[in-house]
Amino acid sequence: MSAAASVTSPVDTVTIALGERSYPIRIGAGLVGDPAAFDGVPNATVAVVVSNTTVAPLYAEALMRTLRQRHAQVRLIVLPDGEAHKDWPTLNLVFDGLLGDEATPAADRKAVLYALGGGVVGDMTGFAAACYMRGIAFVQVPTTLLAQVDSSVGGKTGINHPRGKNMIGAFHQPLAVVADLDTLATLPDRELRAGLAEVIKYGPIADAAFFDWTERELPALLAREPRALRHAIRRSCEIKAEVVGEDERESGRRAILNFGHTFGHAIEAALGYGEWLHGEAVGCGMAMAADLSAALGLLPAADARRIARLIERAGLPVAAPPIGPDRFLELMRVDKKAEAGEIKFVLVDAIGRALVRGAPDAAVREVLAARGV
Amino acid sequence: MSAAASVTSPVDTVTIALGERSYPIRIGAGLVGDPAAFDGVPNATVAVVVSNTTVAPLYAEALMRTLRQRHAQVRLIVLPDGEAHKDWPTLNLVFDGLLGDEATPAADRKAVLYALGGGVVGDMTGFAAACYMRGIAFVQVPTTLLAQVDSSVGGKTGINHPRGKNMIGAFHQPLAVVADLDTLATLPDRELRAGLAEVIKYGPIADAAFFDWTERELPALLAREPRALRHAIRRSCEIKAEVVGEDERESGRRAILNFGHTFGHAIEAALGYGEWLHGEAVGCGMAMAADLSAALGLLPAADARRIARLIERAGLPVAAPPIGPDRFLELMRVDKKAEAGEIKFVLVDAIGRALVRGAPDAAVREVLAARGV
Repeated sequence: MSAAASVTSPVDTVTIALGERSYPIRIGAGLVGDPAAFDGVPNATVAVVVSNTTVAPLYAEALMRTLRQRHAQVRLIVLPDGEAHKDWPTLNLVFDGLLGDEATPAADRKAVLYALGGGVVGDMTGFAAACYMRGIAFVQVPTTLLAQVDSSVGGKTGINHPRGKNMIGAFHQPLAVVADLDTLATLPDRELRAGLAEVIKYGPIADAAFFDWTERELPALLAREPRALRHAIRRSCEIKAEVVGEDERESGRRAILNFGHTFGHAIEAALGYGEWLHGEAVGCGMAMAADLSAALGLLPAADARRIARLIERAGLPVAAPPIGPDRFLELMRVDKKAEAGEIKFVLVDAIGRALVRGAPDAAVREVLAARGV
Repeated sequence: MSAAASVTSPVDTVTIALGERSYPIRIGAGLVGDPAAFDGVPNATVAVVVSNTTVAPLYAEALMRTLRQRHAQVRLIVLPDGEAHKDWPTLNLVFDGLLGDEATPAADRKAVLYALGGGVVGDMTGFAAACYMRGIAFVQVPTTLLAQVDSSVGGKTGINHPRGKNMIGAFHQPLAVVADLDTLATLPDRELRAGLAEVIKYGPIADAAFFDWTERELPALLAREPRALRHAIRRSCEIKAEVVGEDERESGRRAILNFGHTFGHAIEAALGYGEWLHGEAVGCGMAMAADLSAALGLLPAADARRIARLIERAGLPVAAPPIGPDRFLELMRVDKKAEAGEIKFVLVDAIGRALVRGAPDAAVREVLAARGV
């Protein structure tokens, strides 16, 4: 089965190099049904697939069938769908499922969790794995473009707090990331565009040539051409792998992956989680971060416009809701990168090169005003 | 101030050797008021003391005064007291406090948490530190005997789930443990005895001479003689340091520190957390584990009786509530040491030497029956 699959559909592998916590990202078609895609995962007795009400009906059965070749018991936990549910009560559904009841024994410390879904399912399953019995193994099976190019890779896990996004969480690396390109076929257009925000991100912060490629291939990406999607995912993962391998716990360089996120998180928190998709907020946030880079004289204004233009062409918002600058600044101060009340921004001083620094409130307020805040 | 203190009251230091995560346990009188006791903790802008309604009125002001010499802002979060509150809603009070409100800015990633209280406060504060912004620093300031000899040392943090004790948590080492002997003066007798359960534990699993000492000095310990308490705390910490240094994440030997805990956790879960103190449940659990060791022919019956006798002399229960053997076994199967449904017991094959193994249900049922389950 896997041999046949590999003839028709090659599997690209990107490695996250973190010593004994290293793991592969496997990218290809048909991987949910391919036992070989999970090579290296221990044959624990119990596997638990965590998914949501949208994705489970589409792919859970296929994944569970594949996993039964590796695990004696395969269970399924289905969470409500959406960023609004990325909270403790929903996380606790995973713990309840793991601990079982009179009829089902508790999953033991060797059990493996599988996150089948987008960024919310991946972040929550990873955090549940980090905390259950003080840490068990898990595998990411991302089914959205956003999760395949960004959130499933790198070990950041967590949940939201009303005051701030991803405020409660852990660094906990998966054993593997299995990105099945076929799952993108069922992705709503809005989710595809949200995922493109994170693809667009990698060019400005790390790779000018990839930015050029993204500009050129955007129509192919929007048309879901497999060749274009595969390249976008692989190149995004390669860049993320290189950054994470260098700075796993974000003591320095890894922060550049948050380009657009300081602004974006404030939008998400202000509107209520789930009102805008994460990728939409990041898209608008990147336009703001590019503006701020230009306003501070770091980046030519033409390059800032080029970045905003690409975001707009991807169908993402480049103007923010009228949150008001005071509230917006207050929400940004809760950012994890803030230090002693100073907000740290990820900026670019050339397309392909990022830096992290503070900025005068006045400059930030100008940018906010220009983008409708 | 610290120089004067060190003349009248020497500080004993035990080191937990974990490479870059190594830290000191400082044991002495007057340490809550001694800035030198916190040497090595970074001078972060924000410090947050987490305590409970019983301990905060006694020691929070003194600790905050000391910490103001190190941190520009010192805040206090007061939790309800008791094992029944070792749950998510209470943990979330810590996150709410850290994230602040309109008037108080969010604590940043450099902030240091201080756990001022017993085992529950220490476990919850440590877990909050492990999760807040994916991990910040914390210091243990244990004020109960149980916390000073056991729970504040070694980095196990977490909360309870209705189905099992400490089921949700993390390994997260503190920067330091500061055990102020003076705080034991206000400890209720019942809590003192509960702490003695964990002191008594170390002899059977690791040090026959310390077991002899504990038998001999029990009256002095019950009378709170400072010399006896100090020795008990130091020797307990030395043994724990040696075991944790060898096996931080409990992949092997560290499990011996759970002597009596598999039985004890079942009692706590069955009665409802807080009905029996943790140390009381562990005391009874150790008598059961000693019985089981004898029933399996590992330990002379006379030695099992000697262990139970010491527990009884400490004023701890050696008979369990009538939970019923089926329910008791079911609760034990949720233990973190269980694998594929088999309960692993910490047993002793001599006073001073522990091992971990399974046991036939029939033998366990005999032990449970003999101890009133």
